[in-house]
Amino acid sequence: MADSTFLQLEEASDFSFQNLPFGVFSTANKPIPRIGIAIGNWIMDLSELDCFSGPEMAKQSNVFREGELNAFMGLGRNAWHETRQTVQRVLSSAEGYLRDNGHLQKRTLINQDDAIMHVPARIGDFTDFSASKRHAENDRIMFTDKSQRILPNWDYMPVAYHSRASSVVVSGTDIRRPNGQYANEDGNVDSGPVFGPTKKLDFEMEIGALIGTKNALSQPISVDSADNHVFGFVLLNDWSARDLQSWEWNPLGPFLSKSFATTISPWVVTAAALEPFLCDPICLQDPQPLPYLRSKSIKTYDINLTTSLQTEGQTEMHYSSSVICQSNYKVMYWTLAQQIAHHTSNGCNLLPGDLIGSGTVSGPTYYSSGSLSELSERGTKPITLVDGQRRAFLHDGDEVIIRGWCEDKSVRIGFGECRGRVLHHRQHSPPPFP
Amino acid sequence: MADSTFLQLEEASDFSFQNLPFGVFSTANKPIPRIGIAIGNWIMDLSELDCFSGPEMAKQSNVFREGELNAFMGLGRNAWHETRQTVQRVLSSAEGYLRDNGHLQKRTLINQDDAIMHVPARIGDFTDFSASKRHAENDRIMFTDKSQRILPNWDYMPVAYHSRASSVVVSGTDIRRPNGQYANEDGNVDSGPVFGPTKKLDFEMEIGALIGTKNALSQPISVDSADNHVFGFVLLNDWSARDLQSWEWNPLGPFLSKSFATTISPWVVTAAALEPFLCDPICLQDPQPLPYLRSKSIKTYDINLTTSLQTEGQTEMHYSSSVICQSNYKVMYWTLAQQIAHHTSNGCNLLPGDLIGSGTVSGPTYYSSGSLSELSERGTKPITLVDGQRRAFLHDGDEVIIRGWCEDKSVRIGFGECRGRVLHHRQHSPPPFP
Repeated sequence: MADSTFLQLEEASDFSFQNLPFGVFSTANKPIPRIGIAIGNWIMDLSELDCFSGPEMAKQSNVFREGELNAFMGLGRNAWHETRQTVQRVLSSAEGYLRDNGHLQKRTLINQDDAIMHVPARIGDFTDFSASKRHAENDRIMFTDKSQRILPNWDYMPVAYHSRASSVVVSGTDIRRPNGQYANEDGNVDSGPVFGPTKKLDFEMEIGALIGTKNALSQPISVDSADNHVFGFVLLNDWSARDLQSWEWNPLGPFLSKSFATTISPWVVTAAALEPFLCDPICLQDPQPLPYLRSKSIKTYDINLTTSLQTEGQTEMHYSSSVICQSNYKVMYWTLAQQIAHHTSNGCNLLPGDLIGSGTVSGPTYYSSGSLSELSERGTKPITLVDGQRRAFLHDGDEVIIRGWCEDKSVRIGFGECRGRVLHHRQHSPPPFP
Repeated sequence: MADSTFLQLEEASDFSFQNLPFGVFSTANKPIPRIGIAIGNWIMDLSELDCFSGPEMAKQSNVFREGELNAFMGLGRNAWHETRQTVQRVLSSAEGYLRDNGHLQKRTLINQDDAIMHVPARIGDFTDFSASKRHAENDRIMFTDKSQRILPNWDYMPVAYHSRASSVVVSGTDIRRPNGQYANEDGNVDSGPVFGPTKKLDFEMEIGALIGTKNALSQPISVDSADNHVFGFVLLNDWSARDLQSWEWNPLGPFLSKSFATTISPWVVTAAALEPFLCDPICLQDPQPLPYLRSKSIKTYDINLTTSLQTEGQTEMHYSSSVICQSNYKVMYWTLAQQIAHHTSNGCNLLPGDLIGSGTVSGPTYYSSGSLSELSERGTKPITLVDGQRRAFLHDGDEVIIRGWCEDKSVRIGFGECRGRVLHHRQHSPPPFP
């Protein structure tokens, strides 16, 4: 791979020449969503390029004119690899095709500030795991008032639930505080629940994986071939209403406490770009997993994650000063490959565009907790923000911004942002209830 | 509506002139899936008809050339109503358009025996409720060994979980016995679980509702307008692996114990066709539901349901002699309108093609239990089949056939069949595990 591009990029850009994440965008003068690659502050419009001449993509480049990545992802790893090579060549400083063609540059390079980003894929099914041991322990305390001991099944399998695909929204979408049922504050279950706006709105800092290629129904994916099915990764905020969750979770799991919205970042960072950041997980798996979850090589990715909480009026604040937690994807106990092997071990079929959430990326330390309820110890110890305000749970007007990146001396692979602001309750439409 | 058709129908046909359910089919000599209407033993191919001239459908009849009902359903109730009127007119004995045109009949009327049926819609999200109080009580005993008292939340809301959309298959698809984790038979949790083929494969007899028109994200659907969003109904078998379910359900709900397959019947019986069978639910709702779940008129449908279990070699057996349970949709405690109002009360958006399962339709009597584990009291008292064989759970080779119908003196509205056979384990592909 040529090691530089002819485009001028800021040195700290998330979207380096080594990254090249895929997204779906539209523009004011061409409002049809289509597929592009982020490079620095530019988007290269793949639907306008006439350079895909390799054996995989020569007859398939029409997939870049679709408003979702599903068809492209479904072409498989060879097509992804060839496309990445082509894009690298077109952008490299050694190649004249785009470098020397001002007209073509004008048509294919769009400033990100002029683009509207869309959910990058039609999400078929959305599965959310709970792969951080620390988060599972914290959940157990929050929802059962029991000891920190997690349930026996957790040690043997990556536990998960089906979540809601229709309400997955792209970064920047405002979040409406959901109504729902929760227990009366008096704590007396017999007095019945109340219905109203959640008082315990929370975020969850996660990584989402996008499935690229399917398995047939009844054909499990082995743990050692699981990575072949993964196209790439996004940041994910699994917004949660903790009072609704406490009331509803038993026995069928989280439902309305999560399904009102899930935010993902628009740029899908490919598994190929993340390869230099493969690493060992931090946790030792003990007890040893059952054979179908054992791998020759248990690997994960070294992805830094931070969440910033900005209250209203803080919009000009520098990101880093408003960060309230920092963690890393490698703290997760179960790997994505194990999650996929478990998910399909019963024959369940994954399809291009399926989204797999990691679960909250909570590490062993206080500051590495990936949700507000963990940081505030279930709301009992509100955290103090940089402007002096205190938060047990999210207030209207609060904005939550997750960032993620991999970095070593020579390269930075960034995810951009996963951002969402909680609307003021007065900005809600009146409910249609009588 | 004209009250008869020029076609000769068997008197007991599920697909009467008053029914006219929608489905997606293909044929050997035209393998492209398209939309048709069932009438007697015929399918009328809507993609070949040139008779949609009303204001709603004149420019929209291309939707019938699609291989899924989603686009048609998304057009809304006025379009559904107009289409039903047009189809009734074309098929009526008073109208010459099709009656007197042998060529057109040949092109548009297909014998059902010559058609392959497909899943009628692209299922976006699949939500499964648990709306039978009796079933919820039985579940509670099965999975917690606790008393029959259900959890406090059940009385206040229609509890549900997100289920798996990708593995929804059409009636007739063979079912592979899933592998999975379950507790060691010795009952000692500390000895860890085992992984292998489920030993407790079960069915669940349900009704599925197909959402026709969406609500916008953050815009709840009121209980009194919920019915407007429902296009129609199918039979649904929520195959379940009870040993997997016992091991995994706490705390995130059912996952792999359900996601290996869900079978639905191919013909979508419209809400319009079922209107004469609106009735009061059997259960009194006590305590009174919260205001957002209260309706001016709590109505459900009087739909009879039976399940037959046919062991291998019984294939020629008459259906009725192999029936093992019989129930009725009206036994459900929570109505579909309440389920929809609850589902969207947090702003969650429903989309055309979303599938909503009723939950197992178990009535108050033994014979009205809608699953084998209920009929066999959690496997402790195997039932005896007509051929003398006994069943605690399903064996390889067993075929489960759900039927459903509404009937009064003048009309029969039938659902056809929801059928699936458990493959022999030797028919499984070898697992890819090392």
